[in-house]
Amino acid sequence: MSNRLRHLTTLENLPRETIERLLDRAGTMRDGCAHGTRKLDLLAGRTVLNLFFEPSTRTRTSFELAARRLGADVINFDIGFSSTAKGEELFDTLHTLEAMHMDAIIVRHKESGTPESLVRHAMSGVAVINAGDGNRAHPTQGLLDALTIRQHHPDFSDLIVTICGDVKHSRVARSDVHAFSALGAKEIRLCGPASLMPDPAEVPGCKIYDNFDRAIEGAHAVIMLRLQKERMAATDLPDEQAYFTRYGLDGARLKRAAPGCLVMHPGPINRGIEIATDVADGAQSRILEQVANGVFVRMAVLAEVMGR
Amino acid sequence: MSNRLRHLTTLENLPRETIERLLDRAGTMRDGCAHGTRKLDLLAGRTVLNLFFEPSTRTRTSFELAARRLGADVINFDIGFSSTAKGEELFDTLHTLEAMHMDAIIVRHKESGTPESLVRHAMSGVAVINAGDGNRAHPTQGLLDALTIRQHHPDFSDLIVTICGDVKHSRVARSDVHAFSALGAKEIRLCGPASLMPDPAEVPGCKIYDNFDRAIEGAHAVIMLRLQKERMAATDLPDEQAYFTRYGLDGARLKRAAPGCLVMHPGPINRGIEIATDVADGAQSRILEQVANGVFVRMAVLAEVMGR
Amino acid sequence: MSNRLRHLTTLENLPRETIERLLDRAGTMRDGCAHGTRKLDLLAGRTVLNLFFEPSTRTRTSFELAARRLGADVINFDIGFSSTAKGEELFDTLHTLEAMHMDAIIVRHKESGTPESLVRHAMSGVAVINAGDGNRAHPTQGLLDALTIRQHHPDFSDLIVTICGDVKHSRVARSDVHAFSALGAKEIRLCGPASLMPDPAEVPGCKIYDNFDRAIEGAHAVIMLRLQKERMAATDLPDEQAYFTRYGLDGARLKRAAPGCLVMHPGPINRGIEIATDVADGAQSRILEQVANGVFVRMAVLAEVMGR
Repeated sequence: MSNRLRHLTTLENLPRETIERLLDRAGTMRDGCAHGTRKLDLLAGRTVLNLFFEPSTRTRTSFELAARRLGADVINFDIGFSSTAKGEELFDTLHTLEAMHMDAIIVRHKESGTPESLVRHAMSGVAVINAGDGNRAHPTQGLLDALTIRQHHPDFSDLIVTICGDVKHSRVARSDVHAFSALGAKEIRLCGPASLMPDPAEVPGCKIYDNFDRAIEGAHAVIMLRLQKERMAATDLPDEQAYFTRYGLDGARLKRAAPGCLVMHPGPINRGIEIATDVADGAQSRILEQVANGVFVRMAVLAEVMGR
Repeated sequence: MSNRLRHLTTLENLPRETIERLLDRAGTMRDGCAHGTRKLDLLAGRTVLNLFFEPSTRTRTSFELAARRLGADVINFDIGFSSTAKGEELFDTLHTLEAMHMDAIIVRHKESGTPESLVRHAMSGVAVINAGDGNRAHPTQGLLDALTIRQHHPDFSDLIVTICGDVKHSRVARSDVHAFSALGAKEIRLCGPASLMPDPAEVPGCKIYDNFDRAIEGAHAVIMLRLQKERMAATDLPDEQAYFTRYGLDGARLKRAAPGCLVMHPGPINRGIEIATDVADGAQSRILEQVANGVFVRMAVLAEVMGR
Repeated sequence: MSNRLRHLTTLENLPRETIERLLDRAGTMRDGCAHGTRKLDLLAGRTVLNLFFEPSTRTRTSFELAARRLGADVINFDIGFSSTAKGEELFDTLHTLEAMHMDAIIVRHKESGTPESLVRHAMSGVAVINAGDGNRAHPTQGLLDALTIRQHHPDFSDLIVTICGDVKHSRVARSDVHAFSALGAKEIRLCGPASLMPDPAEVPGCKIYDNFDRAIEGAHAVIMLRLQKERMAATDLPDEQAYFTRYGLDGARLKRAAPGCLVMHPGPINRGIEIATDVADGAQSRILEQVANGVFVRMAVLAEVMGR
């Protein structure tokens, strides 16, 4: 595998074959698990470290499980979330961890670009995996969303997918767009209040909507983003109820989508703000499949970057 | 084992055979450890998650050790103790953990009944083990106390046991009463200030005492509860010294009990408040045996609920 | 090995053979790792517990890695750093952990002498390893510094080593002095502001300097201590720049040392306060080798105290 990934910092510019290889492998791991294979030993003897500068119990746990199910040791490096480590201080931490012979570092940081900085400053063969940096990228989320869609809708060439909410500040949305574009999605629609939409130049090929009823029309998958409540002010909507009325997903609105449209959300959900309870828990919801796929995608990524 | 436990939320209404089966198994594990068996692999490949909404390093560590000594992977899900997760938010967390293929969830929560809520809302075969809910139940503590008594006094039919302290707010006392009743104890006595005693209807068959000298008379085991200092006000006793004089266990008082009476405490102890130092550290103290038995009981419970 | 260590609380008074045996073993483990041996199973089935009353992610992680690479289970006992556990409370914690069958306890505490207190009060065969107590000792740091020097300068009989900074409050410096003396170093020089120098009676055989230019003259290794910024006041130097001018290590000053002088620091470094960036990152810097050696030394110590 001469072109295997050494790091995963973003899905941007990643070749379609690479993304498909990762999804194929995650799918194989999912099948193995369904047939009772609880653990593999691909990473026996390896050490994976969680370096989270922002708290995220769900994502950290998903990575921890993925690494352990491959037989790796996992260290949670508790840096304290008050730490604003950057620059030399951050690189000294990196070099210390390399000196301890870490095989992979999974990093979450509020500054966009931190994972690439780590890659540039790394002195050993340590693999860096981005678990979310600023507003920029959350590549394993993009992969798990692609895997979830592909499971139900294998041919992306006629796929219409709608992403709704605070797209502007969402690393999930950015990584989704990169994944779906690379896989040849027919149409990617972004929807939300104008103040929460990205610059169109940033998302070439995407269609931007203000009207969710139109954005969801005929969609095969709809991804609802979590509303950060402190962003409400930017929406020009008086309250959460008004936000839900315009940009929330309820049963009536879902009927405008294609039959069987997949309902997705990166979680944790705000019921009644971006998504109605009956839709979140309904037959079309794939939210828990996303969680399950998250572990398999992270297993595939860990195995890839560590060359196993 | 058609009637095996799938969950352990309370000892209330558990058949005597079930309790005895768990104690027998814990005893077998204790014997194995004494003969050098440090680890078993009954739970190899399984994942056990600690979901503690109240801090408790001792209990969490005891469960973590129990799970690891059975070969399981253990995840500490750090939800932050400021979280008051309940209702949908709690169930979304549960479903997320189930989607990640957890085999067992060990939960501690300040709201009574939380473990049963999790059982009712669980969608997979995940096992739920209560590590303490509100004032209600702490079933593994009840089991470990029973195991400790049985080790020294195998026949419960003539057993007199006295529980002293803030029984009203004690989940330990409730689970002890359930365990000792099921095992056919002859007499269970509860003692403490009237304001810290439960409604008698809640503890049928127990004798309630205000006078510790009388409550301890002829007892084969005495369990001293930890006094929560903030509860002092409710006792109508002016200070901790006065509390100790009336409800503390010292050497003179212990002489009123049956010869060799077992001295027990769930820990951590407040020396000089509920128990005198020379008694806590004396020849009749079983406090550290309780700690040791705690690991074996939790091993037995984990193996049982996971069907191994 | 009749004279094997049962505990490691300090290097003071440790025989030269013991220190050399530990260094030899750490060196063997380092060689094994270089040849691809990632894990050993010397401690399979054993449980090692981190009991840190002061935060130290680096040291805790180094011990955790060391224990895991020997196959042990590791428990991080999160006591909360606000805890000031001492006296009976601390010993009750110790006895609880012993009852849970811990094989080794790694302790860091701000009170000097805590590790010895634990050894004196232990009731089982549990091994106690000091990960830093007050100003007094940090024996694994002393060992890793000795290992790092020995790697480049095997014959201590002509070794001149200079330790510069706040020696008075440094447990690192004390353990370094004990290690280097035991190994027969020719000359140990201590340098820093008079207010940060220890009583000479405390460091027999060491030479005390106020002038760093003279202290570094001809040295084969220089160990820069981390300046605790709250100690600046005691230095009679107006600011960090002035401190650096007199006691910092820059390239010009390093030229006064012996050719190839090893530049060392226990980390994390304060660039521009005690050490210049180009020196910290320069060809003579051994700072990251120290980190790497820390894991191997801790592996050797764990194996020794647990009799493997």
